Amino acid sequence: MTHYLRNCWYMAAWADEVAESGLARTLLEQPIFLFRNGEGIVKALFDRCPHRFAPLSMGHVTDGVVTCRYHGLAFDASGTCVHNPHGPISRALATRSFPVVEAHRAIWIWMGDPEKADAAQIRDLAFLGSAPDTAFNKGYVLGGGNYQLFVDNILDLSHTDYLHPDTLGGGSITRTRAHVEQRDDGIIAIQWDSYDDVPPPLVRQKMPAGVERADSWTHVEWSAPGIMKLVNGAVPTGSPREGAGNSINVHIMTPETATTTHYFFASTRDYALDDAEMNAAIGRIRAQIFSTEDEPMIAAQQARMGDQGFWDLKPALLRIDEGAVAVRRRLDAMIAAEQGEME
Amino acid sequence: MTHYLRNCWYMAAWADEVAESGLARTLLEQPIFLFRNGEGIVKALFDRCPHRFAPLSMGHVTDGVVTCRYHGLAFDASGTCVHNPHGPISRALATRSFPVVEAHRAIWIWMGDPEKADAAQIRDLAFLGSAPDTAFNKGYVLGGGNYQLFVDNILDLSHTDYLHPDTLGGGSITRTRAHVEQRDDGIIAIQWDSYDDVPPPLVRQKMPAGVERADSWTHVEWSAPGIMKLVNGAVPTGSPREGAGNSINVHIMTPETATTTHYFFASTRDYALDDAEMNAAIGRIRAQIFSTEDEPMIAAQQARMGDQGFWDLKPALLRIDEGAVAVRRRLDAMIAAEQGEME
Amino acid sequence: MTHYLRNCWYMAAWADEVAESGLARTLLEQPIFLFRNGEGIVKALFDRCPHRFAPLSMGHVTDGVVTCRYHGLAFDASGTCVHNPHGPISRALATRSFPVVEAHRAIWIWMGDPEKADAAQIRDLAFLGSAPDTAFNKGYVLGGGNYQLFVDNILDLSHTDYLHPDTLGGGSITRTRAHVEQRDDGIIAIQWDSYDDVPPPLVRQKMPAGVERADSWTHVEWSAPGIMKLVNGAVPTGSPREGAGNSINVHIMTPETATTTHYFFASTRDYALDDAEMNAAIGRIRAQIFSTEDEPMIAAQQARMGDQGFWDLKPALLRIDEGAVAVRRRLDAMIAAEQGEME
Repeated sequence: MTHYLRNCWYMAAWADEVAESGLARTLLEQPIFLFRNGEGIVKALFDRCPHRFAPLSMGHVTDGVVTCRYHGLAFDASGTCVHNPHGPISRALATRSFPVVEAHRAIWIWMGDPEKADAAQIRDLAFLGSAPDTAFNKGYVLGGGNYQLFVDNILDLSHTDYLHPDTLGGGSITRTRAHVEQRDDGIIAIQWDSYDDVPPPLVRQKMPAGVERADSWTHVEWSAPGIMKLVNGAVPTGSPREGAGNSINVHIMTPETATTTHYFFASTRDYALDDAEMNAAIGRIRAQIFSTEDEPMIAAQQARMGDQGFWDLKPALLRIDEGAVAVRRRLDAMIAAEQGEME
Repeated sequence: MTHYLRNCWYMAAWADEVAESGLARTLLEQPIFLFRNGEGIVKALFDRCPHRFAPLSMGHVTDGVVTCRYHGLAFDASGTCVHNPHGPISRALATRSFPVVEAHRAIWIWMGDPEKADAAQIRDLAFLGSAPDTAFNKGYVLGGGNYQLFVDNILDLSHTDYLHPDTLGGGSITRTRAHVEQRDDGIIAIQWDSYDDVPPPLVRQKMPAGVERADSWTHVEWSAPGIMKLVNGAVPTGSPREGAGNSINVHIMTPETATTTHYFFASTRDYALDDAEMNAAIGRIRAQIFSTEDEPMIAAQQARMGDQGFWDLKPALLRIDEGAVAVRRRLDAMIAAEQGEME
Repeated sequence: MTHYLRNCWYMAAWADEVAESGLARTLLEQPIFLFRNGEGIVKALFDRCPHRFAPLSMGHVTDGVVTCRYHGLAFDASGTCVHNPHGPISRALATRSFPVVEAHRAIWIWMGDPEKADAAQIRDLAFLGSAPDTAFNKGYVLGGGNYQLFVDNILDLSHTDYLHPDTLGGGSITRTRAHVEQRDDGIIAIQWDSYDDVPPPLVRQKMPAGVERADSWTHVEWSAPGIMKLVNGAVPTGSPREGAGNSINVHIMTPETATTTHYFFASTRDYALDDAEMNAAIGRIRAQIFSTEDEPMIAAQQARMGDQGFWDLKPALLRIDEGAVAVRRRLDAMIAAEQGEME
């Protein structure tokens, strides 16, 4: 059985994926029904009627009450049965509810002990919420591999030089030693600062004509369970970084099952905030790259791994894996500590 | 491993599904070949050649002899090899035959001890056989859930008020307490008798213009393993029931595998026997409802249950489940008794 | 777990299936990458990067060096890492290579102890290599059954009389007792020599007009693991065999998984060597028969057998199985001996 970190906030969906009528999604191998109450507040229930196990998501939502389509039992957002057309309401007539919070254009769910859920612990991604629509684009891919493989992919960006050579990769990440820092606040930061190197094709397009070499920076900040902020930018070699313009991105991985992942990604920036056309182009190219280059590679990795664990297969790890290994060890320790508490 | 009741008659097919050339169908997880001999009598063999395990159903049938397409071995309807083009016929050259009977427009198979097979034990559904073609319609759905879920669905017709509100459900079943009776003859009867209530949309169509309320009756009679007769009718409130017209239906469930079900259904009536157009309309609407509303709901139930047993999941049962629970307990007891005998 | 004979040559592909850029194929449940070096010599690597388990076949091949598309590690044909853009090359940075030989228009791979690989042990099928293009046709089917079922199919050609009655079967094989000979060189030979019998439809077409009966010969020679040469021909009854013309065929089975088989087949002949049109027609009819008649039957056999072993199911074997049983026992003994050595 796969062990997941339970007492943490997972991204469950983009906020606009959840209408009042709801969204059914499997998270950490559990069927979850996300919906909105009469005030538009997002709620989450275990997506299975306690009576005969029909999916509540096949029913309908009215003023925050979910009515099962099979026998008409109705549940409020706490999972308590509020209407049984067939008799009294026993205590067994309840389904589990999950703490859920809408923030930063996303829905966050707490799959562990609800007493411990504290919205203040949600990763601060306020830059997503405050970004104007003309400088915000996002996407979603259901990925065919374990979520830790998708996390690894962002923590070792040297892959861009080989998997995305025509767009995101130019060799400079490979030529730059990553600086890995484990911070006290739970962030593991991985930074590539490159000087006077060839920029990737998509970066070169944004440089002044004739500029062939650049100073660039790519800073990833991971926090548990699989939430990554990625800031990058570049200037012609030797130019000042101030005011250069940063691309500010997130890559967020939530397990669907042991071998499938909800991969949420988004991008904003601190320049050209009203350029809707550029914004759409950035969104398109990112969705294309992640879905046609990253996802197939990671799904193929998973297929080659079969049902064996990552460490059991004895990977021949390299210096470029330093960040990913630090994150895997941190997460493993957090899960082990949590399992210890639960025993 | 799933335990099935063995010593009983299961419906294997509608009679007109089985031509002389035969029908291959998996029943209780066993591959069965149903075919007809030279006199048109239906026969059943285990659908696997004893030589090299080719399906006999890939071969051909001539005068009740089935010839394997792979190496030409021929078997009569008792499963005895009657022709081996390659040498003598040993005792090992035999496949299992199953007692099989055609009755009531259907084919019935006995999957248990053949010595105990007694055609007199086949449920009396003579009203199907005697119905004129203009007052008989039938259908078949391969359902994606355990057969007991499909049986439960008929034994608790309150579901019609929520799953079929535009056709079969109007709320009156929910408002009527079912009367459950366990009879000495093995029948468990569940009866809803409703007075002065709102009839379902399809019933209202048949009422005189302006009639808004009705007295109605819905009587289900289950017998093992999953054979249900359902009689229902309605009259304007206070009118005499005599001569009112009954719809007389069957719902018959046979396990294909632990999580799939052969769902056979048919309908006849005791009025308007020569109205072929009405008959066709009834057949169409029933097939549509069962395949697009019931089957998807039960398949979703099964998906939410995964490979866990119904009782293991601790369903929060209601008063409406009284009939279904009585049937599940009866069937469980019959299976347990049979298993005890076999040990 | 399925045990396979390891120390032997398996056919991995037709030579023209492997371009310099390579072919990914699963053999004996292992992912293999076949490719060519700068001189066109075929090489084979375990198709999984030791770093993070990406398929090497998703990368690119240059001068016999395979570069992983995920992080740019490069491996030579021995599986040794020859380029690590990210740091030093440790001993762990290696993938397994397999001895591989191109011969007789095919690629042969050795999945066992590489020290024991001896190209001289490859079955001599020089007649395939020397056949002119106008007298050589071949094909490939990915078959849905265990490879031994596909081998059995060729070793008992009586099946042609029932499975292919309109083309290859006429009854004469059934009427002829096979002569089985276990030779010292590892060949098991099965010979059907038929006199004055009705030839199969495709053979009759080649007879002089009016000839209804023929003398014919069909000689199969099996060697481990599943390589069969099949020579057959026919003359009008009583005519001399000399100069009659032989069809010379191979049927070669390589396990993909326990229940799927790479089925390679080819045909040449010792007459009408420059008749390209006849050659194409022979290729077409053979591919059609094997893919639409043999493969579906064997896949159906496998489905009926499920995950049970052939002997566990207690097949009721016949005289026609003598050759196939001899081969199964021989192969089982070879595998058992090899397993014994390895313990």
